[in-house]
Amino acid sequence: MSYFRPTIAAMKGYIPGEQPKPGTSIIKLNTNENPYPPSPQALEALRALDGEWLRRYPDPFAREFCEAVSDALGVPADWVIVGNGSDDMLNVVVRACGEGSDRTIVYPTPTYVLYGTLSAMQPAEVIEIPYPSDFALPIDALVAAKGAVTFIASPNSPSGHVVLLDELRKLAKQLTGVLVIDEAYVDFSEYSALSLVFEFQNVIVLRTLSKGYSLAGLRMGFGIANPTLLEGLFKVKDSYNIDAIATLVGTAAMRDQAYKNACAEKVKTSRSRLTLDLINLGFAIAESHGNFVLATSTAKRAEDLYLELKNRGILVRYFNQSGLDDKLRITVGTDEQNQRLVETLRDLF
Amino acid sequence: MSYFRPTIAAMKGYIPGEQPKPGTSIIKLNTNENPYPPSPQALEALRALDGEWLRRYPDPFAREFCEAVSDALGVPADWVIVGNGSDDMLNVVVRACGEGSDRTIVYPTPTYVLYGTLSAMQPAEVIEIPYPSDFALPIDALVAAKGAVTFIASPNSPSGHVVLLDELRKLAKQLTGVLVIDEAYVDFSEYSALSLVFEFQNVIVLRTLSKGYSLAGLRMGFGIANPTLLEGLFKVKDSYNIDAIATLVGTAAMRDQAYKNACAEKVKTSRSRLTLDLINLGFAIAESHGNFVLATSTAKRAEDLYLELKNRGILVRYFNQSGLDDKLRITVGTDEQNQRLVETLRDLF
Repeated sequence: MSYFRPTIAAMKGYIPGEQPKPGTSIIKLNTNENPYPPSPQALEALRALDGEWLRRYPDPFAREFCEAVSDALGVPADWVIVGNGSDDMLNVVVRACGEGSDRTIVYPTPTYVLYGTLSAMQPAEVIEIPYPSDFALPIDALVAAKGAVTFIASPNSPSGHVVLLDELRKLAKQLTGVLVIDEAYVDFSEYSALSLVFEFQNVIVLRTLSKGYSLAGLRMGFGIANPTLLEGLFKVKDSYNIDAIATLVGTAAMRDQAYKNACAEKVKTSRSRLTLDLINLGFAIAESHGNFVLATSTAKRAEDLYLELKNRGILVRYFNQSGLDDKLRITVGTDEQNQRLVETLRDLF
Repeated sequence: MSYFRPTIAAMKGYIPGEQPKPGTSIIKLNTNENPYPPSPQALEALRALDGEWLRRYPDPFAREFCEAVSDALGVPADWVIVGNGSDDMLNVVVRACGEGSDRTIVYPTPTYVLYGTLSAMQPAEVIEIPYPSDFALPIDALVAAKGAVTFIASPNSPSGHVVLLDELRKLAKQLTGVLVIDEAYVDFSEYSALSLVFEFQNVIVLRTLSKGYSLAGLRMGFGIANPTLLEGLFKVKDSYNIDAIATLVGTAAMRDQAYKNACAEKVKTSRSRLTLDLINLGFAIAESHGNFVLATSTAKRAEDLYLELKNRGILVRYFNQSGLDDKLRITVGTDEQNQRLVETLRDLF
């Protein structure tokens, strides 16, 4: 007997962005981390932690954190489900809802590659609907695909565009399956579709602490939806997916909205500056609502640029796939980091 | 369309043991936590952590931790896969290997309930082989069941018995699927089957930091197997399942074997004392190799005892299922906690 299911034996694993060790001098603009440290209050919560929290199993519902979300976002605490990163929540949704060719997973492309990886793993058949060049949401095609789950990332990665509330409402109204609105990058945007969870029973909005809250290392994400939808997801979620430290530190970070917002403002200002500098260097860039920009290289092959930057100690993200292979996704760093990138690119041209 | 797959819609969620908040005065002997705090070195690692570790994504392979495992257990570092608790590893194995009625999940019962829950979720058909009353491993029946995965917990919960190396070797030799030896409680036992990973390509041994290392709140477990077997499991594992804090704290704990062993010795001494005290109270108890005892109540209904203890501020585990409903699983606490339990039981009789 082969050790693995045929689906798993045949698939390739997801390849995460390169993660050099902290302390190395590399400028890391490849995985959309926030360039600023987490809230001082989050770090203080970490210092205050005692062994008793570690000795015992954590709260399976991370209720303290849910209360903090409730206070920060104005949603009931029992409308919150907490994941080990929002990747965990994506996985839970696919496992709860997707299956074979009857219960498909649908999303517009290009978008977050993990939607496809998780579907392949289930396995659930995937229907990808390409975005038009202006990134208008292809609502009719998405509805016609009849997904058990439809994923919309807004702001989307790697494009950086946002899908407006009215478009998402039109979509939610016509879908019979679950609509996941993945707002991983919402903290850098003026737009959110969170209110749709109160209008539609089939909508779940996902958030993460990895980007806006500078806590990618903590692994904490969450979903917001009505308790009926959450009930099925709780069956699939691992009871102890959130460790006790993450619950405490994440709660403190969630309660410090002012700090998070101040960092996001700095990132947004730097994003404008970086966009302008890259355009001046000859890149084509559409407006981004995330903490990254997608830069189309016209003068030089994007892959060569990626490799040359890497040689010079700057990591950016290159996607070796059709439609993206002339582009680089560049995380917005500090102004100093962005300046180093721009200068290095200028040298390369 | 129903939001959920039929499998999920039909299933009940796993119900974890009750988790009162730290700080409450309850004596908690229901989820097999270690009564002693984690290694001082683990807590020191926690204090030393800075924001940079939290800001950035963690190492998907937790390599530092794998090196510590390598040093502590004498296995190559690239034979280690790290999970968000060993529950995460169980899930990864079921997802990688189990499927429908062709690729079944097999285990002797009674054992850890989560094996069944994870299989139901997949879905993969389960074949349960009841242990005989002397808990001899039913090797022929297990082999005949032809599982894609066979789970053996040793020491087993809730029985506390251990399966000897020779028995496991006989089983491994005859199985064509994967044999998972779940050694969550091994730190309280004299027996391990770790060496089998070097003899058989289909064997993976699972360990956890939740019990022996007093780190249930950290969510850290790991598997040890040859890289060929691990390759398939890595495809299913979430890239960032282990947070940066867990990697650092878990590494420090793994490097402090002396502290872990000293705590385990104390627990084993207390286990002997508690066993004797409970036998004197009229319970029937078989020898346990874990940090718990399974006590058969002859004088009073086990469920009543469970509820009466709970009313008096002592939590133990009661399983409302055939074969176990006359028993209580009692975690070995500190001598003081165990004494409180024994005295309270004496009052109840």
